[in-house]
Amino acid sequence: MKSLRFDAYKSSPELVETGRPVPGPGEVLLKVAGAGACHSDVAVFTEFDEEFGPAQLRPSFTLGHETSGWVEELGAGVSGFEKGDAYLVYGPTGCGHCRACSRGQDTYCENAATMPYLAIGLGRDGGMAEYVTVPARNLVPLGDADPVAAAPLADAGLTPYHAVKKSLPKLAGGGTYALVIGLGGLGQLAVQIISALTGATVIATDSNPAAMERAATNGALTVDSGPDQAEQIRALTGGRGVDAVFDLVGIAPTIELAMKVVALQGRVTVVGIGNGSYDWNFYGVPYEVELTSTYWGTVEELHEVVDLYRAGKITPQVELFSLDEAPLAYEKLIAGELAGRAVVSPAR
Amino acid sequence: MKSLRFDAYKSSPELVETGRPVPGPGEVLLKVAGAGACHSDVAVFTEFDEEFGPAQLRPSFTLGHETSGWVEELGAGVSGFEKGDAYLVYGPTGCGHCRACSRGQDTYCENAATMPYLAIGLGRDGGMAEYVTVPARNLVPLGDADPVAAAPLADAGLTPYHAVKKSLPKLAGGGTYALVIGLGGLGQLAVQIISALTGATVIATDSNPAAMERAATNGALTVDSGPDQAEQIRALTGGRGVDAVFDLVGIAPTIELAMKVVALQGRVTVVGIGNGSYDWNFYGVPYEVELTSTYWGTVEELHEVVDLYRAGKITPQVELFSLDEAPLAYEKLIAGELAGRAVVSPAR
Amino acid sequence: MKSLRFDAYKSSPELVETGRPVPGPGEVLLKVAGAGACHSDVAVFTEFDEEFGPAQLRPSFTLGHETSGWVEELGAGVSGFEKGDAYLVYGPTGCGHCRACSRGQDTYCENAATMPYLAIGLGRDGGMAEYVTVPARNLVPLGDADPVAAAPLADAGLTPYHAVKKSLPKLAGGGTYALVIGLGGLGQLAVQIISALTGATVIATDSNPAAMERAATNGALTVDSGPDQAEQIRALTGGRGVDAVFDLVGIAPTIELAMKVVALQGRVTVVGIGNGSYDWNFYGVPYEVELTSTYWGTVEELHEVVDLYRAGKITPQVELFSLDEAPLAYEKLIAGELAGRAVVSPAR
Amino acid sequence: MKSLRFDAYKSSPELVETGRPVPGPGEVLLKVAGAGACHSDVAVFTEFDEEFGPAQLRPSFTLGHETSGWVEELGAGVSGFEKGDAYLVYGPTGCGHCRACSRGQDTYCENAATMPYLAIGLGRDGGMAEYVTVPARNLVPLGDADPVAAAPLADAGLTPYHAVKKSLPKLAGGGTYALVIGLGGLGQLAVQIISALTGATVIATDSNPAAMERAATNGALTVDSGPDQAEQIRALTGGRGVDAVFDLVGIAPTIELAMKVVALQGRVTVVGIGNGSYDWNFYGVPYEVELTSTYWGTVEELHEVVDLYRAGKITPQVELFSLDEAPLAYEKLIAGELAGRAVVSPAR
Repeated sequence: MKSLRFDAYKSSPELVETGRPVPGPGEVLLKVAGAGACHSDVAVFTEFDEEFGPAQLRPSFTLGHETSGWVEELGAGVSGFEKGDAYLVYGPTGCGHCRACSRGQDTYCENAATMPYLAIGLGRDGGMAEYVTVPARNLVPLGDADPVAAAPLADAGLTPYHAVKKSLPKLAGGGTYALVIGLGGLGQLAVQIISALTGATVIATDSNPAAMERAATNGALTVDSGPDQAEQIRALTGGRGVDAVFDLVGIAPTIELAMKVVALQGRVTVVGIGNGSYDWNFYGVPYEVELTSTYWGTVEELHEVVDLYRAGKITPQVELFSLDEAPLAYEKLIAGELAGRAVVSPAR
Repeated sequence: MKSLRFDAYKSSPELVETGRPVPGPGEVLLKVAGAGACHSDVAVFTEFDEEFGPAQLRPSFTLGHETSGWVEELGAGVSGFEKGDAYLVYGPTGCGHCRACSRGQDTYCENAATMPYLAIGLGRDGGMAEYVTVPARNLVPLGDADPVAAAPLADAGLTPYHAVKKSLPKLAGGGTYALVIGLGGLGQLAVQIISALTGATVIATDSNPAAMERAATNGALTVDSGPDQAEQIRALTGGRGVDAVFDLVGIAPTIELAMKVVALQGRVTVVGIGNGSYDWNFYGVPYEVELTSTYWGTVEELHEVVDLYRAGKITPQVELFSLDEAPLAYEKLIAGELAGRAVVSPAR
Repeated sequence: MKSLRFDAYKSSPELVETGRPVPGPGEVLLKVAGAGACHSDVAVFTEFDEEFGPAQLRPSFTLGHETSGWVEELGAGVSGFEKGDAYLVYGPTGCGHCRACSRGQDTYCENAATMPYLAIGLGRDGGMAEYVTVPARNLVPLGDADPVAAAPLADAGLTPYHAVKKSLPKLAGGGTYALVIGLGGLGQLAVQIISALTGATVIATDSNPAAMERAATNGALTVDSGPDQAEQIRALTGGRGVDAVFDLVGIAPTIELAMKVVALQGRVTVVGIGNGSYDWNFYGVPYEVELTSTYWGTVEELHEVVDLYRAGKITPQVELFSLDEAPLAYEKLIAGELAGRAVVSPAR
Repeated sequence: MKSLRFDAYKSSPELVETGRPVPGPGEVLLKVAGAGACHSDVAVFTEFDEEFGPAQLRPSFTLGHETSGWVEELGAGVSGFEKGDAYLVYGPTGCGHCRACSRGQDTYCENAATMPYLAIGLGRDGGMAEYVTVPARNLVPLGDADPVAAAPLADAGLTPYHAVKKSLPKLAGGGTYALVIGLGGLGQLAVQIISALTGATVIATDSNPAAMERAATNGALTVDSGPDQAEQIRALTGGRGVDAVFDLVGIAPTIELAMKVVALQGRVTVVGIGNGSYDWNFYGVPYEVELTSTYWGTVEELHEVVDLYRAGKITPQVELFSLDEAPLAYEKLIAGELAGRAVVSPAR
C-alpha cells in the first residue's frame, strides 16, 4: 500500500510503497477514510532535527494524526467491533496503564519519556496511508456520520473542545462573554463549540475578512484587528470584559490582547502554539484571572466532540485530496492556499 | 392607591384603597410596572387557615411576588438608583445578615422562623398595587428591556433557572439529554433556559397539545403522555436515558416517569409542588442518580435570568390585566383559562 | 496451584487444584500477596441461582475481587512493569474501549451486558489463588507499602472513597458535618477517608460499641443507636443538620435516619446494599437534598486510595489467613466473628 | 473616645479624641474587642499621596480593617442582634445591591468607583478606636470564641482562606501537594487552613528559621530557601510537582519558584502584594497550569473561617497592645519586631 512518510529531518514527506500493517494484541486495523493535514506536521518535517524536537518524533514514520476509518481486522484479544463500522481515532498513545492514561488522558502519560512515540501519526505510523493500526481504546464510533469530513475533529475539534470544557465554569449561566482570537480551522470550531455548549455571547476576531464572515454566520459578533480592537471588544461586553478568552494564535500581541479584555475572575487559555510571551504582573491583570495553556484532550472528550458532530452542531470545513495528492495538500497548507482543513482520503 | 389584598383565610383577594407606602431605611419605593399571578397565591387564599400554613403568610397583605417597577423614591441610607429606572424584584426577604442571606439566598435564611414574612407578596405587601416598597438589595436592573413582560421572571423564570443551574454539571459537553415534564409557564421557560445554556437535546412532555407545540417551536423534541411515554423518551436518547430531568408537576406519576427514564449518574429535580411521593429503592434506580428538590433561587441568579431576557434568549408568555382586572386574572388562573402568565399592570 | 473456587450455586467455595494461569495479550500474571473476603462473595454463593443473579456470575470461577500481588510475568504487548513489584488490582473489567471504560470507570461499561464477567473475582478468576492474571490497566503500584494489608483497599477502600469524593463539594470549607452510619470495614475506612480529605466534623453511629470506639480513635464523634439518635446527631451539628451522610448499611431504618438528619442542600449517599426503601416526598425532605446511591469506583480513584494508604492516612484493619484457611475465613465472615477484613495470603 | 487616625498623607497615624459614632440605618455600633495592624495600613500612610493611591483612601479616617467587637447599639431597621454578643467584622463595603455585593463579594463591587471608601478601616472609620459602626450584613457571629485573638482572621485569615478555597479542586482526593511560600501571619494561617481542609501534603518555605519551625509544628514539611530550593520541593512530591502553590510574598523570585515547581494542571496563586512580575511563556510552564491572583474574600467565607477558628483548627498568633500603644504596634510592625499579628485591644 502507499503511505506518506516523513523519512528524514528537514525534508518533505514522500509517498512510498509499504507493507500493509498487521494489528498487534489489543489493536485494530482500519481502512483509512480521512486523514487531516496539520500545521504541527509541517513543524515536524521543516523545523526539527537531531538536536531540536523530541526523540519520539524521529523519522521515519507515516504522517496523519487526525484519522478516521473503517474497521478491517482485529488483533489478538480484541472484540466488540464490526468490520466496516466507521471510527474516529484518538491520536495520543500513552503507556495505557498509568494514572493519566487510566482516565483516558494519554497526552499527560506519566511514562511519556520512555514511550517510543507521542501519538498515531506523530512517531507511530499515522493515517496518511491506505491502512493504519490503532489500539482498540483509541477508537470512537462515528455511527452513520460521514467519516471523511470527521477526520479533523480528532485534533482541530478536540483541542478547542478541551479548552472550552475546562472554561465552562466561567461561561455557566446567563450574561457571559467568550472571545475567540484567530479564526483558522480550530478557531472556527471553537466558535461553534462555545455556541453549542453555552449561553455565552461569542466575540471573534481575526485579520482575515473571510474568516470573520464565516464566524459571523456561526453566530459570533466580530471585531476588526484595528488599533481600537480591545476597546471594541470590551464595549461589546458592556465594559465588564470577557469571561473566557481563547487565543488560537498564541503570539505576544494576541496574549496581550486577551489579558487586556478579560474580566475580573475570568480565564485566558492560550491554545495556539505561537511561542508568545506575556509579562504577568499582579497589578496588571484583573483579580483572580486565570492564565493557562492547553494541549489536545481526552478520549472521553473525543466521544463528546463526535456527539456534537453527529447532532450537526459542529461542522469542520474541509478540502479533500486523494492519497496521491497528499504532498500537494501540505504544499497548499504551507502556502496558505487552503480554504478549510486539508483531508487526505485514500478511498477517493 | 388601590391594592389587591388577601384579607382573610379562605376568601378571594379584594381590591381595597390603601395608603401609598413609605420606603423605610435601606428600602426603595417602586411604581409597579407588572405583577404576576401565581398558583401559589391561590393556595394561600384557598387552602391555608390558622392551623395549616406558615405564620408568615397570615392575612392581611397585598399579593404579588413577581414584581417589576420603576424607581420612585429612596429610603434612608440608599443611593445608586435613578428615579424612573426599571427594576425586577427578587421576592424572598430573609434577615439580610445570616450566612445564607450573605450569599443572596434569602430562601434559606437561617433566621426564617423569626422573620415576619416569607417574601414580598408573601406576608409582606407585594406588587398587586400601584406602589410597593422593597429592600434595595432585592432590585435587579432591567435596563431598556420591557419591565411589564419581565415580571414573571421573578419566580416563573428564577425557579426553573435555579434548578437548571444546579444541573449544569450533568448537561456539560456534547451528547447530553434533558427532559422537561409539564409545560406550563415554568416548563416553557425551563425549555428555553436549557436550550440557551447547554448543548443538551431537550425533550418535553405534557398532555396539552398546544403546550407541546409551543415547546417544539422552542426547539424541544416532544413526547405524548401515552402509555409508552417512558419508552419513547428513552428511545430519543439512544437507550441511554436522560442526564437531567426537571419535573415541573411533581405528582407521583411524573416523579415515577422521571426516575424511569433517568440515565446512570443522572439527576432528577422535582420542581413542581404536586406533593407527590416516590418509593426509592437502591436497586430500583440507576447507580448514582441524584433525586432532589428545589426552591426559588438567589439574587445573583435573578441577575442572570434578566441577562438572558435582555439578550432575547428567554421570553415569558404573558396575558395582561389592569389592576382593576386583578381579581379576574386569578379567576381565569383558577379556571385554567390563561394562555400565558397573567400579569397585572397597574399603569395600564 | 490451589484456588478457592465457586463451583456450583448455593454451595460453599472449595479449594481445588488448578493450572497456573497464563497472561493473555495486554495482561499481567501476579503472584498473589493478599485477597480480601467480602460479603458480596457470600451473597454470590449462598443466594444466587440460575434464575436470580447476573449471568456474568455463573459458576465456576475463583473468588477474590480485592487482590494485591507481585508481578511475575507479562503477556504479549505489555511493558513498563518490573518482576517482583507490588500492585493493587482494580477489580471491575469492562470492554476497555467504550466511553465509560475510556475514563477508567469500568463499573459503568456500556457493553457490560455482553461482557463474560463483571470483575476479577466476580465471574473472572480472582485472587484467592497462588496466581492471578489481570489486564495491565487494572494495576495500581503500591511501591514500598505492605501489599498484604492493602488488599481490602480494592473494594472496602475504593467504594467509600468514591462516595466521599462525589460528596466533596458538600464538605468543602470550614464548618461542615459528615455522618457515617454503620462502622464495619467500609464504615471505618469512610471515617478515615473523610477525616483525611476534608475539614468536616465526622459523626459516626453503630450499634456495636467496639466499632464505635474504633471510630472515635480515628477522630469521629460517636452517637448511640438509641431512640434519640437523630436528635443527638442534629444537636452535634448545632441544629443545622449533616452536610453529607454516608449510609453503609442501606436498610429502611438507616436511610430514614439519614434523611432525618441531613441539612438543607445536603447529600445522602446509600452505600450499603441493604435493599432498603425510602418514601421520598417533596415536603418530607429539606430543600435541595440529594438522595443518591454509589457503586465501587474508578481506576484513578484507586490510585488516590493507594496514595492515602502509602501516606499512612488510612489503615484497613485486617485478619490474616493462609490459602488453606480461606474456607475458614468465609465461615468466620458469615458467623460475624471477624474483627477486621479477612485477607487470604497465599504466601503465608 | 480615642481613635487612631490617618490624618495626612505620609504621616504616622495619631491617637485623637473623637465623638462616639452613631449607627446609621442598617448599621450596628460595636464596642471594639480587637483590631489588627496590617502591612497595607503602613503602605497607606507611608506611600500614598494625592497622586498615588485610590481616592477612597484619602485622609482622614480611623485605621483598623481587621476588627472584632461586642454589639452595643442597633441603627434604624436592624434586628436580630443581642447587646454584648461578639462579632467579627467583614471589612469590604460595596454598594450592597450590585451583583457582586448580592453574593457577599463586596471586594468586587460593580459600583466601587463611585463608593466613598473601600472598606471599614480603609477609607471608612475602622476598629482602632473604642467604638466602630458597621453595616449589619458585615457581622459574623463569634459565639463563645475569644473575640480579641479573632480580629486578624478578618483579613490575615480570610485572604489565604479565599485563595485556598478556589484551589480546592486541585487538592481534592489523595496524593496531592500544596506549597506555601512565605511564612508570616498569612502564610502560617495558610498552612493551617490547607491542613484543615484537604488531604494534601503541605510544604512550606521561608528564609526565617523560626517561621519554618512554627509551620513544621503545624504539620508542614519545610524546605530552606537555598540554591536547590526548587529541586528539594520537587523531590518531596516524588518528582511530580506541586498541585497548588500559594505565594504569600509575590516578588519576582518567589513567583519564579512557584512556576518552577508547579505540577502539570496545577495552580499558582499569587497572594502577596510584592508587585513581582513573571515572564509567562507557553513552553515555559507545564500544560494547563493556572497562574492567578487573589484579593481578600466573601462574607460567607468569613463565616467559614470563624467555623475553623471556633473548632480550634486555626489559631492566629497575636501580640496584644492597648489602644494607647497602637502607635507602638505600627512601629514594631515597621521595624519587623513582632512575633505575631499586632492586635490593638481598647478594652485592655
